[in-house]
Amino acid sequence: MRAIVLRGPGRISLEDVPDPKPGPGEALIEVRRAGICGTDLQLARGYMSFTGIPGHEFVGTVREVSSRADRLLAGTRVAGEINLGCEECALCAEGMSRHCRRRRVLGLLSKDGAMAERVTLPVRNLHVVPDTVTDTQAVFIEPAAAALEILDQIPVGRGSRVLVLGDGRLGLLAAQALADRAREVTVEGRHEAKLSLARTLGLATILSGAARGTDVDPYDIVVEATGSAGGLDTALERVRPRGTVVMKTTCEGSTPFAAWRAVVDEVTLVGSRCGRFQPAIQALRDGRIKVDGLVTAELPLEQGVEGFRLAAERGTLKVILHAGD
Amino acid sequence: MRAIVLRGPGRISLEDVPDPKPGPGEALIEVRRAGICGTDLQLARGYMSFTGIPGHEFVGTVREVSSRADRLLAGTRVAGEINLGCEECALCAEGMSRHCRRRRVLGLLSKDGAMAERVTLPVRNLHVVPDTVTDTQAVFIEPAAAALEILDQIPVGRGSRVLVLGDGRLGLLAAQALADRAREVTVEGRHEAKLSLARTLGLATILSGAARGTDVDPYDIVVEATGSAGGLDTALERVRPRGTVVMKTTCEGSTPFAAWRAVVDEVTLVGSRCGRFQPAIQALRDGRIKVDGLVTAELPLEQGVEGFRLAAERGTLKVILHAGD
Repeated sequence: MRAIVLRGPGRISLEDVPDPKPGPGEALIEVRRAGICGTDLQLARGYMSFTGIPGHEFVGTVREVSSRADRLLAGTRVAGEINLGCEECALCAEGMSRHCRRRRVLGLLSKDGAMAERVTLPVRNLHVVPDTVTDTQAVFIEPAAAALEILDQIPVGRGSRVLVLGDGRLGLLAAQALADRAREVTVEGRHEAKLSLARTLGLATILSGAARGTDVDPYDIVVEATGSAGGLDTALERVRPRGTVVMKTTCEGSTPFAAWRAVVDEVTLVGSRCGRFQPAIQALRDGRIKVDGLVTAELPLEQGVEGFRLAAERGTLKVILHAGD
Repeated sequence: MRAIVLRGPGRISLEDVPDPKPGPGEALIEVRRAGICGTDLQLARGYMSFTGIPGHEFVGTVREVSSRADRLLAGTRVAGEINLGCEECALCAEGMSRHCRRRRVLGLLSKDGAMAERVTLPVRNLHVVPDTVTDTQAVFIEPAAAALEILDQIPVGRGSRVLVLGDGRLGLLAAQALADRAREVTVEGRHEAKLSLARTLGLATILSGAARGTDVDPYDIVVEATGSAGGLDTALERVRPRGTVVMKTTCEGSTPFAAWRAVVDEVTLVGSRCGRFQPAIQALRDGRIKVDGLVTAELPLEQGVEGFRLAAERGTLKVILHAGD
């Protein structure tokens, strides 16, 4: 089959590779769409030393299942949770397989991903995509789940003033996820076009670097989704004493930050990663999270390398690869 | 009066300075004892660009009060909360004067401290020290409050396995503060003598760098009280996924740390600073927090410069200066 393959930092190409074989409890899925996300761009630069097929945001159609019990899944459209726990350790037993120390992660860690014609995943990882959710929307289930994860982690109430730092894909999803609960959500970013899109989604916006009054009220919650190492210090400047900073950015290596400020202001920093798929499917179906304006380009899988180049450009939001229909 | 005075990085001396004058609502206090803490050592190296009289851990006797309503305080032994809020802003109105943006802080920020014969503080900052608490114990009210602050910030339950990183003054106080609530508390440090003291306090200990099994269970809560910039990464290595790291160390400037690890493991980092005095007085009186073994030396105020040198030595715990009796 054709697949996008990473062979090392900067070494990305379209290749013909053998079809994956579903193991016990696994399904073989024909990929329909796969999204390119910020983490994929970092993988291509060497993050996590990943080699293989990237792609962890996808929607596809189940073609084969190994177990008779699961045969009703055949032919259905599915999205898939990306963490594959060992199912043997204490964390997996507690339902925390997303944090299993021996986990594999689709397209990220010891497991080939979805930028290919076919992919395998354990059936327990799959979620049926309702007919009312389009393929394009379904590509956003995984990042929308990561955005909604914030609501599983911290209290966000009617009194909360929230700032989302970063006007990229994850920032715009997180802002929508929080807007439903908070008193107000503001997106601060560097791209006027993306901020304009945020405003059409009903969000307040601030252009980074625009003159700020010295008496701007600090925020109760700041979501750091800039994707850059400097974002954490900006977040600490914007949050109120005893406020909360949600950390979404993963940069390779060490991130310098003003730790003393977090101590003196008694700020709580909450690392936030993957989330549950069901609330994400629900939010996409309900329109609480809108994604149609977030797609910059849709390209065939064969143009995946070009897709990575495009996804890294300054103005780009989501690039989606089409592997099949 | 005689006082220890900082004039800039490394410039510390005993000086004769004018007596402080209590303003409206303030008391004039004759200092009995003042402790030297890690933050004082950092101030002497230039942290916060503080100049003036350091000292924020003290016990003294009230000599003058400006208001007739407070005159019953005269002659009583007191300790004092160190943050002086503006009492006008929204944070002060919410009872968060410890975080007031215009606050002064005793011996730390725009307010002369207690390493002197006399000091002034607003009467509202004072707490009467019960007769059953000795002068030596009373010097620890402020750091014990900072240790107990952790219990005001995060849930610590009978199921919690806690690691305290750092066997210094604050580490040993924090470990005792948590031991009352947690299932187990372990202190990890670099000094066999301090760890031996920890064991006499009923705490489990680990010598840093000693061979650790690869299968050591990660901790639910890690208190980072090493006082050094590398402590945060060690804390992230020791804490379980979705666990909590309490940040107590304030280092000047930028602290590099593996932010990606906090994100991927969804760790919560909680900045923790000053605490309430009443629970600290109670814990010192009850013996839940024991401090007698924590005093390395008691010197007269006149030997304060020598006290700073001694406090910075590797094996030292607390150095206390005697200003009067």
